[in-house]
Amino acid sequence: MQELKEKILEEGFVLPGNILKVDSFLNHQIDPQMSYAMGKEFARRFANDKIDRVVTLESSGIAIALTTAHELGVKMVFARKAKSELMKEEAYISKVHSFTKKVTNEIYVLRKFLPAGENILLIDDFLADGNAAFGLFDIVEQAGCKVAGIGIAVEKSFQNGAKRITEAGYRLESLARIKSLDDCKITFAED
Amino acid sequence: MQELKEKILEEGFVLPGNILKVDSFLNHQIDPQMSYAMGKEFARRFANDKIDRVVTLESSGIAIALTTAHELGVKMVFARKAKSELMKEEAYISKVHSFTKKVTNEIYVLRKFLPAGENILLIDDFLADGNAAFGLFDIVEQAGCKVAGIGIAVEKSFQNGAKRITEAGYRLESLARIKSLDDCKITFAED
Repeated sequence: MQELKEKILEEGFVLPGNILKVDSFLNHQIDPQMSYAMGKEFARRFANDKIDRVVTLESSGIAIALTTAHELGVKMVFARKAKSELMKEEAYISKVHSFTKKVTNEIYVLRKFLPAGENILLIDDFLADGNAAFGLFDIVEQAGCKVAGIGIAVEKSFQNGAKRITEAGYRLESLARIKSLDDCKITFAED
Repeated sequence: MQELKEKILEEGFVLPGNILKVDSFLNHQIDPQMSYAMGKEFARRFANDKIDRVVTLESSGIAIALTTAHELGVKMVFARKAKSELMKEEAYISKVHSFTKKVTNEIYVLRKFLPAGENILLIDDFLADGNAAFGLFDIVEQAGCKVAGIGIAVEKSFQNGAKRITEAGYRLESLARIKSLDDCKITFAED
């Protein structure tokens, strides 16, 4: 997605350790116009897949999952990271280790918001080692639903998440694929 | 906002302890159409206030803050709850005690995403005792910005948040005001 790649080049910057900061529009400050454009693009790529529901993980996936779900005319659910004390109903639960934050979180979706048999589009802002994605696949499959695919805003193609996802047979649609952050320089993979 | 009140009556339910669950459309499963409608309504109420930026708190405020910011044509920032290890820049930090989760969180916004002198619209999904609101007021004022007001989806008018906010001189716009949840029955305040 050309518009996203240009935005990454304009506003993104790289920290040592292959960390790409795009918090000026994607995951702290949000540029709503960009979020709406990304939602339209995800919806376009999955337009023929009869998506029943969009699922993401709080917090940074929410904006683009919302706009995607709105475009597709379906509901969105965001997996939550900590078990709320309010929760009395049963939930599907999985574990996700965060590459950037170096912690393992339990994530959950209440069972009633993931009815069996649905065709689910997963959305997330970043793909690095794929742990969040596999946590979401696990939850969707516990629910007896089908993973139609996963839409990612920024894929770090030099880490192994993309390989793990496609080798496991899931469809992956990344809007921007980054081949390298070496020498703190952003290089995109060829489309 | 009539559409929201009808949705609350249709889908909301009350748990003992004055807890209103609206997680079928507001804070776990999200109904994008409703989120977009709420954003339009917030934008309408603050249309003449020259809003520079919308600020909310992760996670449940993000969807409605995004749609509001998009309608107003401004950027959105969501305050984050835990200090990411990635964070090297300075941040405005405040503390918020959660009524429902019984924990105190630090919340922060990076200074660069809250330039001094702006006119800020705050948005959040729920208003109970007002602690989250006052944490956000604190951050906005640390930044040398002005609070134009706070837009709330669901105000629990029988708790003291609304009173605290208006007595402190802030403008409060709630889309649905709940007078009572006694006997597990939802009663709205008069408009």
